[in-house]
Amino acid sequence: MADALAQLKARMTDLRGLQSIAGFMVWDQQVMMPPAGVGHRAQHVALLQRLSHEKLTDPEVGRLLDEIDAGSLDPDSDDFGLVRLARRMYDKAVQVPVELRSEMAIASAEAKPVWVKAKETNDFGLFLDPLERNVELRRRYVECFGPQDELYDVLLDDFEPEMTTAEVTRIFDEIKVELVPLIAELRDREVDDAFLFGHFPLDRQVALDHEVVDLFGHRPDSWRIDPTEHPFASGAGIDDIRITTHYYEDSLKSLFSTMHEYGHGLYEHQIPRALAPLPTGCGASLGLHESQSRMWENLVGRSMPFWRFFYPQLQEVFPEQFRGVELERFYTAVNRVQPSLIRIRADEVTYGMHVILRFELEQDIVNGRVELRDLPQRWAEKMDEYLGIEVPDDANGVLQDTHWASGLIGYFSTYLLGTVMSVQIWEKIQEDVPDLEERIERGDFATLREWLADNVHVHGRKFTPQETLRRATGSTIDAKPYLAYLKRKYGAPVAA
Amino acid sequence: MADALAQLKARMTDLRGLQSIAGFMVWDQQVMMPPAGVGHRAQHVALLQRLSHEKLTDPEVGRLLDEIDAGSLDPDSDDFGLVRLARRMYDKAVQVPVELRSEMAIASAEAKPVWVKAKETNDFGLFLDPLERNVELRRRYVECFGPQDELYDVLLDDFEPEMTTAEVTRIFDEIKVELVPLIAELRDREVDDAFLFGHFPLDRQVALDHEVVDLFGHRPDSWRIDPTEHPFASGAGIDDIRITTHYYEDSLKSLFSTMHEYGHGLYEHQIPRALAPLPTGCGASLGLHESQSRMWENLVGRSMPFWRFFYPQLQEVFPEQFRGVELERFYTAVNRVQPSLIRIRADEVTYGMHVILRFELEQDIVNGRVELRDLPQRWAEKMDEYLGIEVPDDANGVLQDTHWASGLIGYFSTYLLGTVMSVQIWEKIQEDVPDLEERIERGDFATLREWLADNVHVHGRKFTPQETLRRATGSTIDAKPYLAYLKRKYGAPVAA
Repeated sequence: MADALAQLKARMTDLRGLQSIAGFMVWDQQVMMPPAGVGHRAQHVALLQRLSHEKLTDPEVGRLLDEIDAGSLDPDSDDFGLVRLARRMYDKAVQVPVELRSEMAIASAEAKPVWVKAKETNDFGLFLDPLERNVELRRRYVECFGPQDELYDVLLDDFEPEMTTAEVTRIFDEIKVELVPLIAELRDREVDDAFLFGHFPLDRQVALDHEVVDLFGHRPDSWRIDPTEHPFASGAGIDDIRITTHYYEDSLKSLFSTMHEYGHGLYEHQIPRALAPLPTGCGASLGLHESQSRMWENLVGRSMPFWRFFYPQLQEVFPEQFRGVELERFYTAVNRVQPSLIRIRADEVTYGMHVILRFELEQDIVNGRVELRDLPQRWAEKMDEYLGIEVPDDANGVLQDTHWASGLIGYFSTYLLGTVMSVQIWEKIQEDVPDLEERIERGDFATLREWLADNVHVHGRKFTPQETLRRATGSTIDAKPYLAYLKRKYGAPVAA
Repeated sequence: MADALAQLKARMTDLRGLQSIAGFMVWDQQVMMPPAGVGHRAQHVALLQRLSHEKLTDPEVGRLLDEIDAGSLDPDSDDFGLVRLARRMYDKAVQVPVELRSEMAIASAEAKPVWVKAKETNDFGLFLDPLERNVELRRRYVECFGPQDELYDVLLDDFEPEMTTAEVTRIFDEIKVELVPLIAELRDREVDDAFLFGHFPLDRQVALDHEVVDLFGHRPDSWRIDPTEHPFASGAGIDDIRITTHYYEDSLKSLFSTMHEYGHGLYEHQIPRALAPLPTGCGASLGLHESQSRMWENLVGRSMPFWRFFYPQLQEVFPEQFRGVELERFYTAVNRVQPSLIRIRADEVTYGMHVILRFELEQDIVNGRVELRDLPQRWAEKMDEYLGIEVPDDANGVLQDTHWASGLIGYFSTYLLGTVMSVQIWEKIQEDVPDLEERIERGDFATLREWLADNVHVHGRKFTPQETLRRATGSTIDAKPYLAYLKRKYGAPVAA
């Protein structure tokens, strides 16, 4: 068995290597590649994906998994975690014929430019056929896994392993009932944030972004920050972390976006060295990843303790904008709640409703409860119901996100699940480190970083996301801390 | 057989894909990667190399090659070229046990840092053991190919296919007998080039480099130019060309280096689209590649017609340096001949002797005619004999190049073979385009680019290097045009 385990590890290391290379090449594509290179890049990434799939579904992997007596391994051990994950990955991968995978990849690739055009010309009708095709292929994908009580479970499980539609619905319903009235209450509150818009010279923004992540704990020998169109975090391993941002000359958006990507980058950077080359050597799920990014962006980056420390530096960098603006006014402005059309620009409070809307529509789509051509109308109805705003057109509505064009159905809920988990983790850190806020106010971020390393990042992907959360906080997912946090922060007028 | 050919093509496309990805990752390593990423990168590149080797040496490739009746294919066709190349690659690859390949890779990786330290501390003794190991492994590598009249042939063939030691010796001896007296004659000629050294602000150099390659015919949508330590050209395919340069604040070196890398980049960029995804879709050999880079660097970039056109622009960019320096003085200065210690900084005339010295020493090493510990002394003797200069230390002598540390024995001669071929090709272009120099003087480089596309680049790696040269020029390699060119350009005092 020791030999079978060693062989499995070697194969899984190759698999992870191929996936890391493919991920790194996507970074290059978004950040460095000359645009005409896109044809080569698509072929090369497809080659790596095909080889990865062959590595994973090789019958020898199944044989090795059968030979290994997982019961004899310590359930907390790295080896047990790897065997468990490899079994899950193998069992899922072998259900799906290579031809269907290939059809899905082609359909996504073909849908993407049509979506771009539909969004540009503000014409959902244009996108209807490729969307139909992507949805139909997802239904065939679901069928590969046999009869289901809830078809959407299969898709969700690809993005947030072992999470069910019923469980997410329970959490989101709990949130919805609190958020909708909170938003209605906050929407008319007058907040002066005019000073957040104006002229922010790019070179000073670049220097500021670096200053903030240096402060958080970025090591230039193993990280890069580069500009791109749509920010993301990537890299080629724990010692090669690459975060990206998008600078806007007229606002500070890049600063918060960089803090967000820092959270993703730190998670990958602090994965234990022994796990790193294996499939267990990465974040446990999209949801847990988002818990880290939203923690650094919101719980640190939009908090009073952080700005007590950092606001004087910001004022120094942009004196034209912030001279004469007191800390409290600034804090209130960066936490302004205002229903808006675009998810990725939404504030901390309204963001959740954008996700819930998509989670609900996706289930209707997969279960055939909505005609695709009626999506714009359903979108508009929900935007009115949840956020009280009117959708002027498709580009600012149903066409805004790239996910469905890329065939990613089941992804959205992880954004809100992550946000919910971020507050649970934050409360546990405050329990363990009662003076956390004072430390942040002094510019000490090492304590936070180390707590995350020791309690969350240490597990990599050894356990399910919920088991990882339970080990970190003592509890599985629970919306109450998140709702309490929002009401505490936003429920009453913000005190100075 | 059509089916066997299609299968071979699919396998060869995968092989080329893996090699392209590995090459692209080396670009990233040299240009973008945070330094701590080196560990991941080594593992990922090794993985791609192992998978490439498995793809190539798969017994099924041998079976397909046996099944295909190459005799029935048109010898000029892409298919024939691919089958011929695949046969050659397969036959060579299967001779060498995987274990030996792995030992060679490890020995090279281990030798590299020792060489760096030996060079830094100027201590050849330190490098003796890893060099011994690399040489011993190369001897074992040669043995894999059975008894040889000349052991060095096997190594040479890896870098310049189907070129023999005897043939290179014949060419180099012909060059040596002319070069040594020419250098002796030129070494004392007084040339004022003080204005080539001074202060060249980096931002202006960057703009100038872009201006020159734009002029030559660089397309920003499919090319990048980035700074790095040791300039090279790379990329991920014909639409994704990445050249690199190194800027020095005190000289214009980067300009000539960029023209050199442009030549390499253009060769890969102009490979026909049908060949591009296959192993035939790249330059025919290192030597032919060098013929292209040295053509753009020297035959264009150090020529009077080019500077008649471009010198006014250079004067405008660096008025402090070139105001008051006439074109003729400038031209003479950038063509100054002066024996020096370092190959990569050598001028057009002395360069050849640096290569010949290494070519001769390498044969002595491989055939055991020199004790490795005596290399510094042999180096010094030859430098005195060929260039009339004294070697002060190992760092400026035998330790200057990275090749032997990387296990690359047999590589050097391709630099001079390429230079020789560049002049043969140049003369043929002038025959076909009698007003080539006038065109260059008018800033028209399209004619040159298109001639190269139609007569050299069109063949990719379909034919042997010498067959490629013969198709382009009507002749295989011949030193006479090169020697005549040098004597014409340098033999008499340069006329205004």
